[in-house]
Amino acid sequence: MALNVAALAGGVGGAKLAHGLAAALPPDNLTVIVNTADDFDHLGLHICPDLDTVVYTLAGVANHKSGWGRDRETWNFLGAIGELGGPTWFRLGDRDLALHIWRSQSLRWGIPLSAVTVDVCRALGVRPTVLPMTDDDVRTMVQTDEGEIAFQEYFVRRAFQPAVRGFRFFGADAAQPGPGVLPAIEAADLVVVCPSNPWVSIDPILSIPGVRDSVASRMTVAVSPLVGGKAVKGPAAKMAAELGIEPTPMSIAAHYDGVIRGLVYDDADADCGGILAAQGVRSIRTDTLMRSDGGRRRLAEKVLAFGASLLAERPA
Amino acid sequence: MALNVAALAGGVGGAKLAHGLAAALPPDNLTVIVNTADDFDHLGLHICPDLDTVVYTLAGVANHKSGWGRDRETWNFLGAIGELGGPTWFRLGDRDLALHIWRSQSLRWGIPLSAVTVDVCRALGVRPTVLPMTDDDVRTMVQTDEGEIAFQEYFVRRAFQPAVRGFRFFGADAAQPGPGVLPAIEAADLVVVCPSNPWVSIDPILSIPGVRDSVASRMTVAVSPLVGGKAVKGPAAKMAAELGIEPTPMSIAAHYDGVIRGLVYDDADADCGGILAAQGVRSIRTDTLMRSDGGRRRLAEKVLAFGASLLAERPA
Repeated sequence: MALNVAALAGGVGGAKLAHGLAAALPPDNLTVIVNTADDFDHLGLHICPDLDTVVYTLAGVANHKSGWGRDRETWNFLGAIGELGGPTWFRLGDRDLALHIWRSQSLRWGIPLSAVTVDVCRALGVRPTVLPMTDDDVRTMVQTDEGEIAFQEYFVRRAFQPAVRGFRFFGADAAQPGPGVLPAIEAADLVVVCPSNPWVSIDPILSIPGVRDSVASRMTVAVSPLVGGKAVKGPAAKMAAELGIEPTPMSIAAHYDGVIRGLVYDDADADCGGILAAQGVRSIRTDTLMRSDGGRRRLAEKVLAFGASLLAERPA
Repeated sequence: MALNVAALAGGVGGAKLAHGLAAALPPDNLTVIVNTADDFDHLGLHICPDLDTVVYTLAGVANHKSGWGRDRETWNFLGAIGELGGPTWFRLGDRDLALHIWRSQSLRWGIPLSAVTVDVCRALGVRPTVLPMTDDDVRTMVQTDEGEIAFQEYFVRRAFQPAVRGFRFFGADAAQPGPGVLPAIEAADLVVVCPSNPWVSIDPILSIPGVRDSVASRMTVAVSPLVGGKAVKGPAAKMAAELGIEPTPMSIAAHYDGVIRGLVYDDADADCGGILAAQGVRSIRTDTLMRSDGGRRRLAEKVLAFGASLLAERPA
């Protein structure tokens, strides 16, 4: 019997593991809950970078090379908007633009993001359930040496150069979990925290009232986003350094203290199973890089087997 | 000395003659006043079909084959929005989309259409002045056998199939001429009514309070949009039939009664110079088809020479 799984995901790393889980599980057994605190308005369009990366990846239309955006993409819109003096720092491809325009129009009609996402998934043939963490507006604000900066400004425009001091999830306190989010976590045999950035991809999801407690009540395992103390993509290791945190699996486990019971970390990191176990966190060490579709599935199967073993040990 | 010219234009035919006039005149001597009653909102974007056709044509980036949209266009956005279940009946190209998105965002910021148009013309290297007829919302409503239909629905979606009974320029009574519109007409030695549809391209411009009287007070010549009793493009001849009007140069002159003093009509139409002259309208008969850039300029030069001859005759 396949496990019922709820996965928490940010962008590229989260999407890859979600894709692996989708290959390893029947579609009805997988719900992916996605960070939307990266969402922003650009050129009057509502853009959901993490949600789109997850949806495109599950649909098999993601750009494998960049990790974000669509395959077979063209950039004529971007060239023309540059010609008009418009902003080109956020790269919107011609095919990708359809999703942003269609979603923005749907939201303007009053259709909630979760419902638009159902519709988009159906149109693109995505069979697992994909849920935005909330239908409400939550925005990650990055507190830096240069003051507080909106996430996409920090991440894309400033290429995560300003030194980070902390984060604020503006709107989270008043937000409601999206429809289906708490039920999916509560129905899950296993909750998987994908190898996404703990501070800016997973923490926003956990910051929605009720979500952290619900995840903590389940059998939850996290996959460390670090490989040999470095981030595969993005600013996780740089952020850790700026926050005075060692980029190790122990730090990831400490970050998710009280939330996870197991950690999957990379072969390139020193063995710390004993230390983790002493802190009550079970762990496995494996190749977490997911270089191919096969690699995604292999990691997903390891995570599922690890989760199943922890579930089997648990007193009934 | 080149004449100072104000041209009234709709879409493709108007844009072609405006392009010919731009080739024949110094840029400071030409102002093109464009119909905006075809404008509409689509997918949350503010789309100005006639304005864009004029601007793209003057910029030398128009699609020569279709007459509308941009050259070297790609259609990946449209394919992707169809995939999502969105509307594809209004064909938005990838490059073209940049203008709609950039303009929509600018309007949302509170920048008036006339100011956005100045900016777009500068970015695309358009040197004559291009003015939207108004910064206010005016919408052509087509009264048909099936009831009143918004213009783009009638024109594009329904391919002008419903039979026309009349027109209404919703919002025109309360609209103001755009900045520069009345001054450009008043400063013009010659006003040229381009070979655009009289009912749905030129009448909306004349319906803006003050414009008809201002045009009527100048030396104004129209170029008939009919060639051998047929429209070169679009529904003008079909509309004429449905409205019970003969598709002849005489009908065009009658339509512009009190507004024009001269009419340019095509070699393919029967000579009616005598009849027109008896009604006080001077005329010339020439090739009005504008098959090439050279053809546009030749027609523009004929119109300018005709206008100059009428001006020379006029008592001081």
